[in-house]
Amino acid sequence: MTISVDLNADMGESFGPWRMGDDEALLGVVTSANIACGQHAGDWDVMAATMRAAARNGVGIGAHPGFADLQGFGRRRMSLPLDSLGNLVRYQLGAAQAMARANGATVRHLKLHGALANMASESKEMARACYEAALSVAPEIIVMVLAGTAQQAAAAELGCRTACEIFADRAYRDDATLVDRSQPGAVIHDPATAAARMVEMVRAGAIVTTSGKRIPSRIDTICLHGDTPTAVAIARAVRGALNEQGVTLRMFEGATV
Amino acid sequence: MTISVDLNADMGESFGPWRMGDDEALLGVVTSANIACGQHAGDWDVMAATMRAAARNGVGIGAHPGFADLQGFGRRRMSLPLDSLGNLVRYQLGAAQAMARANGATVRHLKLHGALANMASESKEMARACYEAALSVAPEIIVMVLAGTAQQAAAAELGCRTACEIFADRAYRDDATLVDRSQPGAVIHDPATAAARMVEMVRAGAIVTTSGKRIPSRIDTICLHGDTPTAVAIARAVRGALNEQGVTLRMFEGATV
Amino acid sequence: MTISVDLNADMGESFGPWRMGDDEALLGVVTSANIACGQHAGDWDVMAATMRAAARNGVGIGAHPGFADLQGFGRRRMSLPLDSLGNLVRYQLGAAQAMARANGATVRHLKLHGALANMASESKEMARACYEAALSVAPEIIVMVLAGTAQQAAAAELGCRTACEIFADRAYRDDATLVDRSQPGAVIHDPATAAARMVEMVRAGAIVTTSGKRIPSRIDTICLHGDTPTAVAIARAVRGALNEQGVTLRMFEGATV
Amino acid sequence: MTISVDLNADMGESFGPWRMGDDEALLGVVTSANIACGQHAGDWDVMAATMRAAARNGVGIGAHPGFADLQGFGRRRMSLPLDSLGNLVRYQLGAAQAMARANGATVRHLKLHGALANMASESKEMARACYEAALSVAPEIIVMVLAGTAQQAAAAELGCRTACEIFADRAYRDDATLVDRSQPGAVIHDPATAAARMVEMVRAGAIVTTSGKRIPSRIDTICLHGDTPTAVAIARAVRGALNEQGVTLRMFEGATV
Repeated sequence: MTISVDLNADMGESFGPWRMGDDEALLGVVTSANIACGQHAGDWDVMAATMRAAARNGVGIGAHPGFADLQGFGRRRMSLPLDSLGNLVRYQLGAAQAMARANGATVRHLKLHGALANMASESKEMARACYEAALSVAPEIIVMVLAGTAQQAAAAELGCRTACEIFADRAYRDDATLVDRSQPGAVIHDPATAAARMVEMVRAGAIVTTSGKRIPSRIDTICLHGDTPTAVAIARAVRGALNEQGVTLRMFEGATV
Repeated sequence: MTISVDLNADMGESFGPWRMGDDEALLGVVTSANIACGQHAGDWDVMAATMRAAARNGVGIGAHPGFADLQGFGRRRMSLPLDSLGNLVRYQLGAAQAMARANGATVRHLKLHGALANMASESKEMARACYEAALSVAPEIIVMVLAGTAQQAAAAELGCRTACEIFADRAYRDDATLVDRSQPGAVIHDPATAAARMVEMVRAGAIVTTSGKRIPSRIDTICLHGDTPTAVAIARAVRGALNEQGVTLRMFEGATV
Repeated sequence: MTISVDLNADMGESFGPWRMGDDEALLGVVTSANIACGQHAGDWDVMAATMRAAARNGVGIGAHPGFADLQGFGRRRMSLPLDSLGNLVRYQLGAAQAMARANGATVRHLKLHGALANMASESKEMARACYEAALSVAPEIIVMVLAGTAQQAAAAELGCRTACEIFADRAYRDDATLVDRSQPGAVIHDPATAAARMVEMVRAGAIVTTSGKRIPSRIDTICLHGDTPTAVAIARAVRGALNEQGVTLRMFEGATV
Repeated sequence: MTISVDLNADMGESFGPWRMGDDEALLGVVTSANIACGQHAGDWDVMAATMRAAARNGVGIGAHPGFADLQGFGRRRMSLPLDSLGNLVRYQLGAAQAMARANGATVRHLKLHGALANMASESKEMARACYEAALSVAPEIIVMVLAGTAQQAAAAELGCRTACEIFADRAYRDDATLVDRSQPGAVIHDPATAAARMVEMVRAGAIVTTSGKRIPSRIDTICLHGDTPTAVAIARAVRGALNEQGVTLRMFEGATV
């Protein structure tokens, strides 16, 4: 039996004259890219260039919509009515599809960004509004959901294709939620540690918590953060360790949960 | 032989809390709507509502991209590199397609807005960059071009489907360009006069200039402005007069020039 | 003993090509204008024109900062760190001061807008951050606070000059908070009723609730909403009724609470 | 006789999550900082932090307004009516003054940014509109002008306090205009060369062109670009060379031209 997993990272987060992340390096490591859609980051020129680069590297393309808040990088919570949330997602997804199509590529998946993702992790209603909106535009799209959250529950209800995600660099609590960033050990900075944990979780088909508890979970993809100084190092370490352990790295297929 | 023509107007130009134009009334008169795409006017909620209303009224839906300049309503000229212009158009067209799809409709045509349209009327290179970009996203889209301008020349070179447009409320000079707004008589405010001119031009298959000269031209659609106080009155007068004279009002088909 | 009160309304809420409210008419009624500062409404050209018109009419000028959210008109709640809130207020106040100065006028007061105002009504900490920021730019500025809320408490702590405000068109509960808009009778649409209530409250020096209870309160200014269809009618009715009852209408002086 | 000159650089050009330039290092070299005002770069939090850092380093603070075009970093030409240009400048200058005041500092000078600066170099009318606007807000402000351009001519007409600027890293033609960036040698990348040229020009009180011609000119300040990889190296080399040659580095006083 072959075990395979996808590696994803956020990309295309530059804007106008401002650079962010080392997309070029990450594209050599990941199998899927979550590309910003121009509202919290990533203008249309950045989107086009990032889509082209992803396609050239054989990396799967995802739309990565967020709140329309450049200054806050989509990380500030905003209160929007559900139908407006849906339109926010449709607009960005459509724009991403156009940029992909014009560059000979396709948008395979959708992943929510920042505060929008956090709010959708907590509220099934919000997650559902976003995913239904995406499906109304692209019925075949694979929705990337954070394992064990309201995101996953919403996608399950909708019966859509999904890919379940865990974090390479974050510690988990016994209820499958993340250890708060304010706690020591919440964020894993050491590439070797991150890599070892990922191998363990992927092989076990379970989230391993800080107490050592194993929570069985589908694991389709591992999220590698792109904007930290050690991002590329961690990404390479995880990839290397998984490879060594016989785990195949390839784009998720997307299954219904 | 039946003569038919399309009537188009800009719509969906409200933004957030601000209303513009009487879209509801215009949708009862026109056969095609040019819908703003969120950068110079028309946020995603306005787009969605306008697309739904257009579809409900059997009115053809067009994407109406402009410069990303809300304060200037896309009417201030901006200098952008050609590839950036193309991405600007792709982004907005894709967003429009998504909003249409989610509301059971389709984007049939593309019409450039404001300063972007003016610059493309003067520069075949700019028009071509915009239209090629649109075609890279939607190969079957009908490009609405201003008769006798670089817009038409660019579309002809590309061999794409086009619809040729004349203005209901603007006087023409003998070289087929518009009389400058600063000149007396440049803008026609009287509904009856506008209607009579349109009947004459459509039946003649020619632009009739202020001197009475006739410049043969394909006339597929008549542009009715939506944001003037008399917009709806002119639109209704033109529609009524064309109907009376046996001209059928229907969506353009789009032919190659 | 002479009783006097100020009448205030939000103004300068047009943006680019979009008009909002009938500022011209309101300027003939109110004694203070809360002028939008370009982030939730009111671009710099609108600000300049509104300041000039206010000065010409002898109406007191206030800066009316809100969240940087045009599409949501500053009515969507956003989570910002306190120091960022302060900078948001400073930026907009400074811009308003410059526009006033260039037009021979002065910014006398500050009033928070929309969701920012609502959040500051509930959180003394947020109100304090905003007011301290304003005072760091303009130590003599009069802070307009909603009577009986955390806004008033924050201003009291700071010991700054304030003007206490009540609403002409909103019903009050027995704890001095507003009846929720979803309840019947929450918003008063009838000019005569609004006028009679204002006369009663101003003469009593108290907020009169729906049950008839009187809550003693400083009342320096009455807020007239500018963006409702009946705004001008209500404004005129309130002014007329107060005049008839011998209440002088004039700009608040601003006292410490 | 002591010769002194000011060194200036653009700063505060980060935005939201995006960093630009090494302001910390530059603040140790320059004597004046041109701080972006939130429309082409530099949000209010960045402005506040940059003003504080400049004040702490004893560096003179300037407002550096540009077109409201984040994506284009204010480098794309836009067509605005003159009165709107004036309001654009007033708004940004006022915001900068507020941020300075709140941080115990003062805005001493004004320098136009990017396309706005380029257009004002070519059009005395535009430069005048911008400078008059600034003076209507801050009558004592020192206007930094590019030596030998329409900027200088406009300031001379207005009789305002000015500081004349030359570029450390750009080659000059015999008519005092810059060699176009497309030409070889237009931009000087070598710190030692840049430094030697500046010493020569400052001591001579003249612009030295590529042909060796000397054009007498007031030289109050030398512009060091902040966003190139070698920016800090060039800045330090110029400072070091001037110091060695006995030229005092200090803030310009601003004189009428």
